Amino acid sequence: MSKSAINLSQKFSKFTEHWSPKVIAEMNDYQIKLVKLQGEFTWHSHDDTDEVFIVIEGSMNIEFEDGVVPLNKGEMFVVPKGEKHKPFAENECQVMIIEPKGVINTGDSDSHLTAQSDVWI
Amino acid sequence: MSKSAINLSQKFSKFTEHWSPKVIAEMNDYQIKLVKLQGEFTWHSHDDTDEVFIVIEGSMNIEFEDGVVPLNKGEMFVVPKGEKHKPFAENECQVMIIEPKGVINTGDSDSHLTAQSDVWI
Repeated sequence: MSKSAINLSQKFSKFTEHWSPKVIAEMNDYQIKLVKLQGEFTWHSHDDTDEVFIVIEGSMNIEFEDGVVPLNKGEMFVVPKGEKHKPFAENECQVMIIEPKGVINTGDSDSHLTAQSDVWI
Repeated sequence: MSKSAINLSQKFSKFTEHWSPKVIAEMNDYQIKLVKLQGEFTWHSHDDTDEVFIVIEGSMNIEFEDGVVPLNKGEMFVVPKGEKHKPFAENECQVMIIEPKGVINTGDSDSHLTAQSDVWI
């Protein structure tokens, strides 16, 4: 049979870059991505979509204009469409991101942190 | 600030029923649900949508007409749209499900296991 489970830690072991989401699965026109975060990202928003963050290992924060959401392993947050936010992580953090296919990681922001989208591992 | 993390184990502690998905968040027109599985579900399919299973605690299996996908903690699988499947779990298993709002747990199957949808915890 061609069907088999996707193992998250096995997938995380396949890359080392930070801020560079890798696609591991698709559901309809959505993608499930894994990303390793460390340090500070750029302020940005996604005007057309919400964005799900699920922390698989480590801790991170999402800064908003009205405060900071700390996220630990086993916690998640949905960043609302159009809301400016800036992820940051003091130590490396492993995160699952769920959003529509084609979303650019830096959203509306012109940044050197913009990663290629639709990269599968 | 009104924003705060959603803690998965805290949410799982709020219910005990099996096969009764609870909504914990929405992303656009999709819902993120938690469900506790134990025993055998009914064969069914969802003709209009893929369905994501992510195992948070424990182990489960998804039976297809062409074989079984075992899923352990930290593993996931996307059930393709229209494919007949039957989840089962020997011991209680905690699972995150992601699918469009309005999806019925038993899909096209007429079953006593059909749960009320859109129940938030």
